[in-house]
Order: sequence, then C-alpha cells, then structure tokens
Amino acid sequence: MSVPAPRPKAVVLVSGGMDSAVTLAEAVAAGFDAFALSFDYGQRHRIELEAAARVAASLGARRHVTLRIDLRAFGGSALTADIAVPKDRLGHGVAETEIPVTYVPARNTIFLSFALAWAETLGAHDLFIGVNAIDYSGYPDCRPDFVSAFERLANLATREGVEGRRFTVHTPLLRLGKADIVRRGGELGVDFGLTFTCYDPQGPSAATRPCGHCDACTLRAEGFREAGRPDPVSG
Amino acid sequence: MSVPAPRPKAVVLVSGGMDSAVTLAEAVAAGFDAFALSFDYGQRHRIELEAAARVAASLGARRHVTLRIDLRAFGGSALTADIAVPKDRLGHGVAETEIPVTYVPARNTIFLSFALAWAETLGAHDLFIGVNAIDYSGYPDCRPDFVSAFERLANLATREGVEGRRFTVHTPLLRLGKADIVRRGGELGVDFGLTFTCYDPQGPSAATRPCGHCDACTLRAEGFREAGRPDPVSG
Repeated sequence: MSVPAPRPKAVVLVSGGMDSAVTLAEAVAAGFDAFALSFDYGQRHRIELEAAARVAASLGARRHVTLRIDLRAFGGSALTADIAVPKDRLGHGVAETEIPVTYVPARNTIFLSFALAWAETLGAHDLFIGVNAIDYSGYPDCRPDFVSAFERLANLATREGVEGRRFTVHTPLLRLGKADIVRRGGELGVDFGLTFTCYDPQGPSAATRPCGHCDACTLRAEGFREAGRPDPVSG
Repeated sequence: MSVPAPRPKAVVLVSGGMDSAVTLAEAVAAGFDAFALSFDYGQRHRIELEAAARVAASLGARRHVTLRIDLRAFGGSALTADIAVPKDRLGHGVAETEIPVTYVPARNTIFLSFALAWAETLGAHDLFIGVNAIDYSGYPDCRPDFVSAFERLANLATREGVEGRRFTVHTPLLRLGKADIVRRGGELGVDFGLTFTCYDPQGPSAATRPCGHCDACTLRAEGFREAGRPDPVSG
C-alpha cells in the first residue's frame, strides 16, 4: 500500500466575509491543506470573527487561529475608531477611486506579514488572500502591484526565501467582479449564509443584521443581484 | 514672532537593545519628532521592554507605544518557543551566514508593517529601524534588499503612497560594525547603561544580568572591546 503524499499547506486569510470564504474554498479545491487566519484588530463589528470561525470549519480548514492585534492604539479608520461609516456612497456620483475612511492603515500589509510568519513556521509556501481589484472600494492594499510587492518582500524576508524556496501569494478573486465571486462560490459549495459582510452591523448581538447601506453591503447586494441569486443573509 | 515649523514625525522601532537606542538617537539628531514603537511578542526576555521604555524616555521620544502581538501562537523560534538559545557560537568556526534558531519568522516584516500603520495615522513618512548588515547574526530580514523591498511595498500599500508622498525606511546603522555603533552612540549621548541586549538573561527579575554567551552578548562585547570602551551593563 502506498501512503498518499501529504497535501501542501497554505495559510489563508479569512475575515468572515464572502470574498475570503470563496478564497478559502479555492485553496481547498486546489488541493491545499488550509490553515485559516483571522484577526481581532479592534473592529467594531465582532460578528465577523464568529462568521470567520463558521466559514473555516464549514470549508474544512485544518486549523483556524484568530490573532488579537491592537490597531486601535493607532486609530485612524472608521472601522477601528469613532468615525462615522459612510452610507449609500457608491453609485451616487462619489468617485469610487477615492480612498474611503473605512480604510485601515497598512491592514493587508500587517495581515500578510502574520500569514508569512505562520507559513514559515508551518513549512508552507503559499498564502491566499481574497483581494479584489474590480469591486474593491478603493483600498490601495488590494491592488495587484501591492500583492506582487509583498511576494517579493516575502522572498527576501524569510529563511525559506533565502534558501531558495519561493513564496506565492495567491489572489484567486483578483480579477473577478462581485457577481463572478458569487457564482464561483456557488460552484465550490460555499454556504454564503455563514458569511457576514457589513461595516456597520445593526441590532442587538444575538440578532445582528447588515446595515444594507455601507460600501460592503452595497457591493455584496450588487453581486448577488447581478448573479441572479438571493443573498441568504439579507434575503 | 514667527512660529517655528513643526518637526517632521518619524516612527522608530525601539527594542531596548543598543542598536535601536542609537537609531532613535540618530532620528532625533536628524531633527525628527520621534514616536517610539516596541512589541511585546511573547519574547522570553521581557526585561527588553523595560529597557525600551527607559531608552525612549531618555532620548526624548514624544510617545512610546508597546504593542502586544501574539507570535507565540505560531511558535518556531528560540526567542518565543521552548528551544535552547545557542551559546558561544560566533567566532568558533560556526558559519555566521547560517540563519540561527533565534530567528523569529517574519519579525521585521511584522514590526515594519505596524510602524507603517502608525506612520500613516500620524501623517509621518519616515520609519527608522536599527538593522545592521555587518554584525547581524544572519537574519534575512536585516539585509539591505529586504529594507528596500519593504520601502517599495509601503509606497504601494498606503493611501499616502498612492497619493504620491513617499515613505522612507531609514537604516542609519546598516553599514556600521558594532564598534562603530558604540562610538556613534557615544557621540550622540546615548546612555548604554539603559539598554539591554541578551537572548537569554540570567537571574531573578529584580537583578537580571545578560548571559554573556549568546550571539547578542558576544556581538555587543566585541563592539565595546573594539571601540575601547567599557560596557556599562556588563562591566
């Protein structure tokens, strides 16, 4: 009897939203043994973290780690400080190239740095992040140039890189619109009812609902509408 | 009466060791309003953090923030996990290009990412890190290529970078040997008695002493000896 080769390990950033759920599903579908990583960074909407745990379990991640980091010590974003989340902004004449106040300084740089640390510890050479350059709210650290610059950094920053094993930052959603992400998630069996995507959740914690008006809600709703599917969360 | 122009702000990584103390002194001497950043990352030698606070205060940093991050969740280094710190390794035929087990995965990548986040929040465009490519223990994330790759990433990762203001990662010690660092610190008025540099401190917490045999102690001792000065900590 031959022993099957172990699956290569990958670290996948999982936020609890629909994009990172589809990203995790892509990693698993590609044959990776997935290690899911989430961050408790003082975000006002902690319901995301519960969604991240549900998503990681439902898609078969081997481990799910939530790291607590204290971005609130720096302030500067509507997601971590006391600044109002903008509503009904997209598609109403507001320049979508403008960087919104919900931008968290250097967030994806920090998240990928921790993913890299875990990957190096695990002996993994593959990182997955659900960034998207189409319907992406204008965050600078979601662009392809950012991702390739991080990949380059990873290969200079680590023992593994120095010893000639290359890190790859996989971005399976990079060129997909939100409707494509909904369709692809459907093909991969993602249960979108487990995900949560809203910058400003409403109601008591036991029955929290998305606000339906922030950028994240607006983009999600457009995605389901264009894909011709009901959103199991808002629907 | 004219109001003097405010000094530009800089975020300076301060560990409590001699290199970062001299780096902070260089930032202040260059006219920056210094914001000192340290990390409580589960290192076994917490005396470093007390030294960092003393160093930041003595050199006039405007603020000193210590962020708690949980690198122990990943393991993988003698500085955060239960692996023996190597002793009397340097100068005894061991290849100094070998990456030691005291290497913390992706540590400087993580530290610089947080420094970048704070800088963006402060409106600062200058980061200082005391990496050194001469007497550097063989860590990959202390090399010039790593530093320039991070600078490139910073300009792609941030709102500031996107809007055309460039970040600079200053590495005033990059090309200095340990003896030069001791001499330069003396010129800048650094009190080396406040610093602490050891991977494996000995004794009870009220009277902790450097071990004198790890790579950090060995390099520090060589630096003071070559500079012809007594080390106020070990001496």
